[in-house]
Amino acid sequence: MPAPIPTEAEVLGYFDKLSNWGRWGADDELGTPNLITPEKTQRAVSLVREGVTVSLAREIRWEPTADVPSPPVHFMLESGEGWASGDKVSARPNAAAIDYIGMVFHGVSVTHVDSLAHFFWNGKTYNGKPAHLVSTSLGATVCSVVAGKGGFISRGVLVDVPLVRGVDWLERGEGVMPEDILAAEERCGFRVQEGDILLIRTGQLRRRSVEGPVDRSAGSTACQAACLPLFHERGIAVMGSDTGNDVSPAQYAKVPQPIHQVGITAMGLWILDNANLEDIAEGCRQRSRWEFMLSIGPLPLHNTTGSPVNPIAVF
Amino acid sequence: MPAPIPTEAEVLGYFDKLSNWGRWGADDELGTPNLITPEKTQRAVSLVREGVTVSLAREIRWEPTADVPSPPVHFMLESGEGWASGDKVSARPNAAAIDYIGMVFHGVSVTHVDSLAHFFWNGKTYNGKPAHLVSTSLGATVCSVVAGKGGFISRGVLVDVPLVRGVDWLERGEGVMPEDILAAEERCGFRVQEGDILLIRTGQLRRRSVEGPVDRSAGSTACQAACLPLFHERGIAVMGSDTGNDVSPAQYAKVPQPIHQVGITAMGLWILDNANLEDIAEGCRQRSRWEFMLSIGPLPLHNTTGSPVNPIAVF
Amino acid sequence: MPAPIPTEAEVLGYFDKLSNWGRWGADDELGTPNLITPEKTQRAVSLVREGVTVSLAREIRWEPTADVPSPPVHFMLESGEGWASGDKVSARPNAAAIDYIGMVFHGVSVTHVDSLAHFFWNGKTYNGKPAHLVSTSLGATVCSVVAGKGGFISRGVLVDVPLVRGVDWLERGEGVMPEDILAAEERCGFRVQEGDILLIRTGQLRRRSVEGPVDRSAGSTACQAACLPLFHERGIAVMGSDTGNDVSPAQYAKVPQPIHQVGITAMGLWILDNANLEDIAEGCRQRSRWEFMLSIGPLPLHNTTGSPVNPIAVF
Amino acid sequence: MPAPIPTEAEVLGYFDKLSNWGRWGADDELGTPNLITPEKTQRAVSLVREGVTVSLAREIRWEPTADVPSPPVHFMLESGEGWASGDKVSARPNAAAIDYIGMVFHGVSVTHVDSLAHFFWNGKTYNGKPAHLVSTSLGATVCSVVAGKGGFISRGVLVDVPLVRGVDWLERGEGVMPEDILAAEERCGFRVQEGDILLIRTGQLRRRSVEGPVDRSAGSTACQAACLPLFHERGIAVMGSDTGNDVSPAQYAKVPQPIHQVGITAMGLWILDNANLEDIAEGCRQRSRWEFMLSIGPLPLHNTTGSPVNPIAVF
Repeated sequence: MPAPIPTEAEVLGYFDKLSNWGRWGADDELGTPNLITPEKTQRAVSLVREGVTVSLAREIRWEPTADVPSPPVHFMLESGEGWASGDKVSARPNAAAIDYIGMVFHGVSVTHVDSLAHFFWNGKTYNGKPAHLVSTSLGATVCSVVAGKGGFISRGVLVDVPLVRGVDWLERGEGVMPEDILAAEERCGFRVQEGDILLIRTGQLRRRSVEGPVDRSAGSTACQAACLPLFHERGIAVMGSDTGNDVSPAQYAKVPQPIHQVGITAMGLWILDNANLEDIAEGCRQRSRWEFMLSIGPLPLHNTTGSPVNPIAVF
Repeated sequence: MPAPIPTEAEVLGYFDKLSNWGRWGADDELGTPNLITPEKTQRAVSLVREGVTVSLAREIRWEPTADVPSPPVHFMLESGEGWASGDKVSARPNAAAIDYIGMVFHGVSVTHVDSLAHFFWNGKTYNGKPAHLVSTSLGATVCSVVAGKGGFISRGVLVDVPLVRGVDWLERGEGVMPEDILAAEERCGFRVQEGDILLIRTGQLRRRSVEGPVDRSAGSTACQAACLPLFHERGIAVMGSDTGNDVSPAQYAKVPQPIHQVGITAMGLWILDNANLEDIAEGCRQRSRWEFMLSIGPLPLHNTTGSPVNPIAVF
Repeated sequence: MPAPIPTEAEVLGYFDKLSNWGRWGADDELGTPNLITPEKTQRAVSLVREGVTVSLAREIRWEPTADVPSPPVHFMLESGEGWASGDKVSARPNAAAIDYIGMVFHGVSVTHVDSLAHFFWNGKTYNGKPAHLVSTSLGATVCSVVAGKGGFISRGVLVDVPLVRGVDWLERGEGVMPEDILAAEERCGFRVQEGDILLIRTGQLRRRSVEGPVDRSAGSTACQAACLPLFHERGIAVMGSDTGNDVSPAQYAKVPQPIHQVGITAMGLWILDNANLEDIAEGCRQRSRWEFMLSIGPLPLHNTTGSPVNPIAVF
Repeated sequence: MPAPIPTEAEVLGYFDKLSNWGRWGADDELGTPNLITPEKTQRAVSLVREGVTVSLAREIRWEPTADVPSPPVHFMLESGEGWASGDKVSARPNAAAIDYIGMVFHGVSVTHVDSLAHFFWNGKTYNGKPAHLVSTSLGATVCSVVAGKGGFISRGVLVDVPLVRGVDWLERGEGVMPEDILAAEERCGFRVQEGDILLIRTGQLRRRSVEGPVDRSAGSTACQAACLPLFHERGIAVMGSDTGNDVSPAQYAKVPQPIHQVGITAMGLWILDNANLEDIAEGCRQRSRWEFMLSIGPLPLHNTTGSPVNPIAVF
């Protein structure tokens, strides 16, 4: 029998109860990554035993799919063709290839982090910053991803929910509960601590590779809102998963995306969407070790509400 | 008196002399980052003493400037405006902001790595791959940046040329010589070794912040072609600088961009263009220590000839 | 019983037989629209009786559909939101809305004309211009759409094939035959003449509005290759239809898109793809009159192989 | 001595005095082009004597210039290169070239029309439509350019101000006054009438071709606000010029762009920006005739606040 989920009133209460507004100063635009102190980074580095790296990014591809109807675009402004022909027509003097890339990285495809300008609640985002400061014309004049320019190098901890539950993957519409995280701690021998980058594997990306992409209306698993108090209590700096990070269909009419809505606006939590956790999960299982150094370097995109990233884990 | 530069014949000879074709197998598309073995990564990690991170990326900005007439673009598909008005018109149910970013990352502005599909010589790129495999329609069907998906975590070594020479910055058109690198080794107490990420600071970005941007026709400093044999001999995995990484005006009619042309196509060298080396240089000077762990996670962009990156150094 | 279609050898023979190379000079980049002389324009204008205009363009929309997985894009750089709020954050001093539009107009969605740089045959396009002059870096340095900058105002003639055949629409994979055009002339009382803009309605767009979009792999009706000699004999200046203008699945292995391949490269024929012929067909039926003045103003897009257009008919 | 310009209070009064709100119904989104009745189109057509066409569009180019730092973009998704090589790598089976075009057509470069969703005054646009209906997410859900899909074919009348004043061009910052229009009527023998497309040549584009582009901060000539009552009184349907259509530096603090602000929001006037009036002016002078048929076919861009156009005049 699944654990009962919090009531909508309880989730609405999280906005106050889990708030980090003012915690790191009235002007702070960084939020929970403040918990990644140099000590935490040093601790993460000290976990490395082998020097083996694993990427947590999905390949960024250009074809529309059932779940990603409007993918990023890639155009070649110059290619390798024709240079040997003797009659090459080019603005460029030397044989080189040049690309244009364009993307809406938010959504359910590109591995990316959300900055604290991505969501709003009651007209504000994290630390009480007014929503209108994230403007159509100028973008995120507060809480842009540039706040995370220094990068996040901390301990990554993988909660492999299918491993703990003994299933292939969670069902769409089903939520990861705090009990899953506690069970993983028990089963895998770690404890989520302050400054950690908490990675939740649901197996949904594995399912996609087996069954193929499906329309977003089919729904999604993700962490249930009930996880938010645990995130807060343990002081995680960044949370990520192999999903878009909110259960759908929505479970609460007034708070349809609680992980993003509470996490970003109240807690100042940076969220890593659409990570590829298959390779790291395999690496963890092989080593019976679910912690590792993790390095995330968000692109310092001026006034932007997030960034595509390639998080690199090191065993 | 400046050191004499190699003759054009000598530089043309580098294509054979410094070639790594076949060194890591006929199918290799990765090149010199093969030298970043797990041992090298482990060695880099072991350098960390403080857990202090420093970004080596320039902020990605949207305004045309004298040196970047066609900068990246940033559009908001939804912003924070209007949500509180009661009559918001949006395709989205929840108050969130969404961005589009688009860019030609190659050039002299965005901090980025080049994959081995970026340049060609005699109709081929690294490892003899034919140039036409980097096609207008499909992009880099070989040697794309996805080859570097696993990330580069290795020792970063900073050669601070202005520090060694006792100047503010190098002049445009002037090259960094291997003697500068050797002098830095002497002065700063390190030795460039196999698997290193070699960073060459010329001060050109510092000059830009002092004097403002100038048209690209004004020229650029960078490593002179004479550095290539040293790069090869020492076995560096990645080289980067605070420039576009070739001296201009060009010093050789037949090989106008030797660092890119020899480095990429013959050596399989990954190049980091337009890094911000100001903060790391300051950090090194403060610590009298010019080596550190460096983490680079190129975005795994399908069939693309490079990627914007935010390299993170850790002291 | 359907009329037999030409053999592949016959269609291959069209490249010579229907060639207009040299007809309007060795440097000509305009092709068949040369046949729209001032006299022809004057004749077209003299057809106008009522001053009633009808658009032949499909609305350009932004949603992916089964037949158009990668539609044009539309972003607002500034909108009407927030101006009344008193705390508007904008780069713009005045309340205004600004758009970005982007599109690959070629394909089966946007109503557009092809310039003579759009297709190649044996390494050449119209008038023997080498294909490499349409380069990745610079675009159509010959035969760009700018050749048609002066616009095409001529007599439009509508061949309403479903009307003549007594069907709702033609089947996908089925071709319009020259006999259909001759039957329309007989039935509707006109004769296609030199300088005309010939519009072929297949009903395929009507079918889309009734049955919804289907994947392109389902095929398409269009003019069969057999129409090409008739186009040439009558001297039409532009041909258009409510399709992408080639039968699919392809009927000839070596010439899979004969209307485009022969029409553009040999004849210098401008092709109007994806026109909306529903309103004009209704207007013609109401008036029992299938000729009208037609005005097409291609955008003078530098070095571009075509342009989206809104052709305006006037009764 | 230049004519005195209206006071700011007078210009502010235009919003009421020249209002067409409700004139064509409470739901009207078209505005003054309602005045182009079939009779007016028929009248325009009847002016044609020779069948000679003249384009009023500027070529759309891709290079940044002093006055256009962020021009439209053009990428080739496939080109003519490499098809003859025998080893072409392409997603496309046939030799063809494909383009992407992208642009912010508003501004001072692209010849385009503004729809009535482009500007706002006191939180509303034409016919009292609330500004928030032109939203960041969905664009112009009212008053989009699709309202003009039927095209504008009416009488074009050219007021050649430099001809009338006997100068090469007007100075930047200087306005065209209603007296200039009246003088042109007198000098050139026409009278601006209801439904006309009024074209005002200032010579500014001619100056650009002689002197080269200058930064926008240098200012612009255009129609002075004093012309608005005349536009209203005569019932012009569309007004255009060889400028961005507002004098700059602004002459009124509260109404810095009166032609756009009053014209669009109060009058429902469609404005044609950045027309190329050099060829048509030459054609008019040659014929001593300053009226002609003019055909404008705005692209029916869903929810968009205007469209690039190629207006075609016919003598």
